[in-house]
This record gives sequence, C-alpha cells and structure tokens, in this order.
Amino acid sequence: MQALRFHGRRDVRLEDIDEPATRAGTVKIKVHWCGICGSDLHEYLGGPIMTPTPEAPHPLTGEYLPLTMGHEFAGEIVETGDGVDGLTVGDLVAVEPLLFCGECDFCRSGSYNVCPSFGAIGVVGGGGAFAEFITVPTHLVHPLPPSVTTEQAALAEPVCVGWHAVSRSAIEPGDSALVIGAGPIGIGILIALKARGVGFVAVADRIAGVRKDAALAFGADLFIDASSERIGDAVRGRTGELGADVVFEVAGAQAALDDAIDAARPQGRVVSMAVWEESAVVDLNVLLLKELAIVPSLAYANEYAAVLDAIADGRITGLERMVSRRIPLAEIVEGGFEELVQRRGDHVKILVHP
Amino acid sequence: MQALRFHGRRDVRLEDIDEPATRAGTVKIKVHWCGICGSDLHEYLGGPIMTPTPEAPHPLTGEYLPLTMGHEFAGEIVETGDGVDGLTVGDLVAVEPLLFCGECDFCRSGSYNVCPSFGAIGVVGGGGAFAEFITVPTHLVHPLPPSVTTEQAALAEPVCVGWHAVSRSAIEPGDSALVIGAGPIGIGILIALKARGVGFVAVADRIAGVRKDAALAFGADLFIDASSERIGDAVRGRTGELGADVVFEVAGAQAALDDAIDAARPQGRVVSMAVWEESAVVDLNVLLLKELAIVPSLAYANEYAAVLDAIADGRITGLERMVSRRIPLAEIVEGGFEELVQRRGDHVKILVHP
Repeated sequence: MQALRFHGRRDVRLEDIDEPATRAGTVKIKVHWCGICGSDLHEYLGGPIMTPTPEAPHPLTGEYLPLTMGHEFAGEIVETGDGVDGLTVGDLVAVEPLLFCGECDFCRSGSYNVCPSFGAIGVVGGGGAFAEFITVPTHLVHPLPPSVTTEQAALAEPVCVGWHAVSRSAIEPGDSALVIGAGPIGIGILIALKARGVGFVAVADRIAGVRKDAALAFGADLFIDASSERIGDAVRGRTGELGADVVFEVAGAQAALDDAIDAARPQGRVVSMAVWEESAVVDLNVLLLKELAIVPSLAYANEYAAVLDAIADGRITGLERMVSRRIPLAEIVEGGFEELVQRRGDHVKILVHP
Repeated sequence: MQALRFHGRRDVRLEDIDEPATRAGTVKIKVHWCGICGSDLHEYLGGPIMTPTPEAPHPLTGEYLPLTMGHEFAGEIVETGDGVDGLTVGDLVAVEPLLFCGECDFCRSGSYNVCPSFGAIGVVGGGGAFAEFITVPTHLVHPLPPSVTTEQAALAEPVCVGWHAVSRSAIEPGDSALVIGAGPIGIGILIALKARGVGFVAVADRIAGVRKDAALAFGADLFIDASSERIGDAVRGRTGELGADVVFEVAGAQAALDDAIDAARPQGRVVSMAVWEESAVVDLNVLLLKELAIVPSLAYANEYAAVLDAIADGRITGLERMVSRRIPLAEIVEGGFEELVQRRGDHVKILVHP
C-alpha cells in the first residue's frame, strides 16, 4: 500500500510498504480521513523533533525514522485480531493515536499523556494513517455514535486537544478566554470553550482570511488581527478588564508568548500548548508581579469519548467548516505539506483520504 | 532620627532624617526589630529593581530614590493619629508592609498583592523600618497575640511569604515538597509547609552550614547539598517517585530553575517566587511533556493574621532559630548588608534593632 513516510527535515516520501498485519488484540482499519496536523508540519520543517532517530529509538515501539506519518484519523474496521470483543468488521471508529506504557503511576491514574514513554502513533511509530490501512490495539478504538461521520471523527482530534486544554485551564463559564493562533488547534480550543459554555472568547491571529472566517463561524466573540492590533490592548478594550482570565497560546513563537503574558489578567493563566523549535525567553519578574501561571497542556487523556458525544448531541456542530481542502493521498506532498507551508493563511485543516 | 537610605547600586547610607509625622488614620511605631530581606540585597547588588527612580516615581507614593529601606518589622505604637480606633499607645504590633490602591478589582477581591500599583513599604516609599520610627496606616497594623514577641513578629514576614506560596501551590498534606534555597524565604516556606501538615519536605541549597542546620531544625525531612548532589536525583532517590509534587524555587538563578523543572514530577507545579536580575530561559517543550505548571507567588495577602495565630498557638515554634545575628542600626552596612554579601552561607536572617 502507499504510505507517507518521514525521512527527515523537508523530506517526506510516498512509498510502497506492506499492509500491517492484524495481531491479537488489534483491529485493522481502512483509513477514511486523516488530517495534517501542525506537529506534522513542525517535523517537516524543523524535525526530527518528536520523531525518534536511530540513536534514540522510541522506548515503546523501538522504531525510528523513516516512519509513516498521520495521527488525526478515523475509518472503518476491516479485520479483527484474536481475542477482540465488542468491535466488528464494518464498525466506523475514531482512533486515539496515543502510545503509553500502561504501567506507570500516571498511566494507572488516567494521565497517560504524561507517561514518560508517551508518544503518538504516526509520530513515534506504531504505523501511521497517511496510508490505506493501519492496525491499532483495541483500547485506542472509539466506535462512532450513529450520527457522527468519519470526517467529523478525524476532526475530533484537534478538538480533543482543545478539550483537554480547557480542562487544564480550570476556566469557568463566566470567565473570559483568549486564543492566540486560529489554526486547527486554536479553532479546536474555541470549539471546546463554546461547547463547555464559556461566554467570551477572543481569537487572535496574524493572518485573517479563512482563519478569521472559521473563528467567527465557530462563535468567537472577537477576532483580533494581530498584524495590525496589539492583542492585549484589543482584549482590554473589549472587556474593560485588566486582561483575559485564561490565554491559550498555541503558536510556539516568542512574540505570541509575550502577547499571551501581556494579555492575561493578574492571577490568570497562560495555557501553553505549542511544541517549540527553540527555548523561550520568559521574564519571570513579569509573571511574578501578575502572579500569572503558565500551565502546559499536552494532547489529551480520556477525552475522546466526551468529544464524540458532544458532536453527537449537538453541542458541537458544523465541524466540517474547519476543512479548507480535501485531497487524495497521492497529492499529500505538494497539495498538503507544501501547500500549508506556502499558503498557511489560506487553510485551517487539510484532510487526506487515502 | 537615623535611617538607612538606598541611593543606588552598592550605595546605602545611614542618614539623619526627620521623624515621620503621625497623620489621621495612621499610627507611629517605634521599630523593635527589622529583618534584612533578600530583596533588600537584590536592590543593593543589582538595583534599582523595584525601587522607583526619578524617571518613574511610584504611582501611589510619588516617591523615588533615595528611599528608606526595611520592611520586615514589628514594634510598639507610640502615637496614634486622628480617627484611629482599636489601637492604643503601647500596643505591640506587626505591620504588613504593603501598598496598594484599594480600589481595583484585585484589591476589592482581596488579592491586593497583584494590584497594578502594588509595592512594599520600605522599597517603593512610605517610609522604611531601618529607622527608629515609622508611621503607617492602620489597615496594615496587626496587634500581636499576647504570647508573640516583636522579634517573632518581625520574622513572621518571610513566613507569610511562605504561607502564601503554600496556598498558591494547592499542595495537600500527603504530597511531597522540595524547597530550593535555604535562605530566609526557603526556611519560611518550610515552616509554612510543616505548620500546614505537609508530610515530606526536602530542602536544597548550594551552601550547607547554618542553612542546613536551620532546615533540619525546622523539620526538613531531607537536606540536599546542591554543590555535590543533583537535586532531582536526590529527591527521586528518596521518594521513589518521578519527582516532587511541588517545587518552590526562590533563588532566581537559571541553574536553580532548571533544577526545579527537573525535580518536579509530571503534572506537578514549580512555584516561582524569586525576583530575577535577568530574564530566564525556559524550555517550554520540557514543561509541555511533563504538563508541569509554573505558578508564581508574590508576597502575601490576608495572611498575616493566620501566621501570627500559628505562632501563638504553637503550630510554629522556635522561630528565633532563623536568626543568625542581631545588630544595632549603626552596624547595618558593614555588619548587615556587606556581611550577607560576603558570608551569605553563615546566615539565615540578620535582625536589626534601630
């Protein structure tokens, strides 16, 4: 089958590889849709960052590059391994693409996203979903509620990232939120905030265009064009407060972090979600004088079912508006990765159907 | 009267100034004891940091350097201004040395430590307690419970800093704590942690000597000599866990911050309390992979009475063991500031009696 494999910086290749075998306790899935994630682009432009190298194979998979990419996916079960109960050929499913040891204190307490061996399928090995088929262990498989499509389920992944971040932020419905970055994760946070009843959400980006359209479509109360407005001033001007209660920073750039720290109110929180290509410089005196906490949020844990339920029961609607392009796997390099590098502002989410 | 005035970096002078007038709503206090604070030393060595300059007078006091220093103090009321109720000449009192506007959202909600106009008496103006007398508004004055001495009350100030940090950390009795820095604030945190029932507290410092003695005297379960041991390894070796639940970082140095981040467990907190002389470099990827939050803690708010009560009822005992030297005001420059600069490791707290 065809698969997109990451070989190194700016080097991804469509290659023919064997179909994965269906082992005991796993199911084989025909991938319907897989989104291109910001972290895929980070690896492409600046990696290997999270992708393991021959010098340091991943502790759980033992794998290293070249590796098949793709982790925001959903599809249909086409084969079940020995000992699989409750899942059947033909089931439409989303897959939580996370690898963890299952044995450490964090895994046992449900916080498997901070397992020391944590990694994502499609990043650290375990196959990838920019391919026709993938085989995954059953504990990662979430059957879709009847009204949820596989396209929606592929888009659930960035919403899960947002859902977890909202939980980490301890935001309450009456609080104000600011999201810096209106790409897929920023939109995922916005969707999660609105689904969970947060009243005021501002979204900022240096690029308006389709990202502004998406933010407004998903209920942003204010869009801030960061290329011409100072984000903190815009928030203060609108709310009349000293800043937002919670700021979500997803860009992973120094200017965005500085804006986040400026735009948050005293005793607020900056939820930091980006993978950085270099170390950030933080003026801890500024944090101190505001008692402003930095709260990182990584991926998600035990949140897939909640997000699929919210899509099924209508708290989340119109998820398809995140999609700016749908392409076949054969076009993924030029029509997907390079398209996002060169015309990022024209896109929120590109979906691939292998 | 004699007063120690801050003129600029490495320039503090004992000068004759007028005794302060007792205005309406204020009381005049004869200072019994005033501690030399780490932030006083920061100003002396690297300032003006918090001390206002002629270019930027403090918004509440309108004052700028040269200013009288000293804010960790207690003494006796010797005069009361018009309209003062409930305070009498002869009362022994501690003074919460904080200036704030009293009108902003934060002041009105009780978080006056993050008032945008926040500052400390003895740092940003309002007089200072390295002087025979000081006049302060009554809302800052806390009469001492009968069993509490003015020496203990002067030492309550760094304990209040610790008390607030413990509240900010959301630590629970069964959690483990690490305090990096065994100076007065570090010891204040240790005292607050133990008074509030935290079971395991490790204390680390690059200097052992009297700091180690003080840490053990106040109930530290482990002292880590950071000059020879890696702090995180020592904590993990003792607890068998992936790190401390909460790490308190008071040094304001890059190496200490790096140690704090290393020594905290995933999903733990690093409580950052230091005033930094330069910006810190933070690897946000490391924070992200551990979901490790940075929670700053500044001074205190509504915590003086609780700490004085804890001293009175015996939850805090033997506070005098923090004191490594007692000196008259006339000796403060050489016997106080320079002594701490040159022989920091020989001291926890130097108390001055004007």
